[in-house]
Amino acid sequence: MAKKVNLLVFSGDYDKAFAALMIANGARNNGMEVSMFFAFWGLFLLRDPERVDNDAKTTYEQMLGAVTPKGPEDLGLSRMNFMGIGKALMKDMMEEDDAPSLTRLFEGARKRDVKFCACKLSMEVMGFKKGELIPEVEVMDVTQYLNDATQADLQLFI
Amino acid sequence: MAKKVNLLVFSGDYDKAFAALMIANGARNNGMEVSMFFAFWGLFLLRDPERVDNDAKTTYEQMLGAVTPKGPEDLGLSRMNFMGIGKALMKDMMEEDDAPSLTRLFEGARKRDVKFCACKLSMEVMGFKKGELIPEVEVMDVTQYLNDATQADLQLFI
Amino acid sequence: MAKKVNLLVFSGDYDKAFAALMIANGARNNGMEVSMFFAFWGLFLLRDPERVDNDAKTTYEQMLGAVTPKGPEDLGLSRMNFMGIGKALMKDMMEEDDAPSLTRLFEGARKRDVKFCACKLSMEVMGFKKGELIPEVEVMDVTQYLNDATQADLQLFI
Repeated sequence: MAKKVNLLVFSGDYDKAFAALMIANGARNNGMEVSMFFAFWGLFLLRDPERVDNDAKTTYEQMLGAVTPKGPEDLGLSRMNFMGIGKALMKDMMEEDDAPSLTRLFEGARKRDVKFCACKLSMEVMGFKKGELIPEVEVMDVTQYLNDATQADLQLFI
Repeated sequence: MAKKVNLLVFSGDYDKAFAALMIANGARNNGMEVSMFFAFWGLFLLRDPERVDNDAKTTYEQMLGAVTPKGPEDLGLSRMNFMGIGKALMKDMMEEDDAPSLTRLFEGARKRDVKFCACKLSMEVMGFKKGELIPEVEVMDVTQYLNDATQADLQLFI
Repeated sequence: MAKKVNLLVFSGDYDKAFAALMIANGARNNGMEVSMFFAFWGLFLLRDPERVDNDAKTTYEQMLGAVTPKGPEDLGLSRMNFMGIGKALMKDMMEEDDAPSLTRLFEGARKRDVKFCACKLSMEVMGFKKGELIPEVEVMDVTQYLNDATQADLQLFI
């Protein structure tokens, strides 16, 4: 039977999202099933910059929406970000080594049928609507997360 | 047999403690057993603000005790904290959405018999006495943590 | 059969490396098998300060090599670092309590035959050569990580 991997992506950092997507793509390449459950800052990764919807948002939610990252390339590093210089440096180094970019890893995970889930409560708190995220996302609550995670062979909080 | 969840709470951030307690309460609501093992900054969550005891502390320990958070509502965010403004904003957003506060989640976990453990070595290093923490905490060493964690169906480092 | 522990050390923080090595040493003391897989900032821990090699590095890689930590005692705290003051304080508190230093934990893990692995892609991106790391490190890709991790009884992302 295929091994199962469950990743809870809480962080909205470029480098941690990169690690999570490397694991997800690697697991799919090895025939494993992969669920990624995005909560809090992790939701930034799922936002589609073309689909921001301010209509039903409170003022707070609009403010948060405006100052936070929209989509993969907008995330910062978890350390040495230095107002974006560290990330630019790291991205240049990645290019020199032909390492995939975050966007390429993200699109790869979508093509490989990684299951993308968004935490219901986090979406409510942050004021993100389902229509603002990539379309294949399933909105899930903590019970659904736990059912998936406790049956997986590998679970990480990233 | 009931599924088992083991959470190692290392972080002392409001948002990460919130995620840990959401998982703990959700797991209890679904009949799972839950142990939370608090280490390093995670110990801040277990401090009872009414029970600070400076008598047996070294000067360093008193200093650390004075500048660090006391109890759930004193924790900051892991990102966008902006000297507390980010947290105030997030708490207002949570209230608008009727999301539970950290204190309510924490009290919920206590009522639901989540097992609270404090890392022995971390307590020694930080200079926290057992009497300063909530009373039901059990002090445990790394061997006891490992025995519990390796038998769980889901383990996370938060 | 011996229980297996797999730790993915992504962080380059002193306190998180300390926690990872406490778990690794504790698990070995209890007869468990332990693999530590170091990725991104976690690689800082494995650098041998005596063995920096700038010959085959790009300018970016040399810059990153120069400004980043070299070996265990060079890491900072994940919070309250205050330009190193927080770490000095914490180290003093550890000494007062006879807690082991990070270097002692690291050497203990090496003596106890913890398996040290370095992430291949992270090494390429950061520009670290195998000869700059402690000699017993094995370089592994994500597939090798997943094979080890999905067979372990406890996996953490630190």
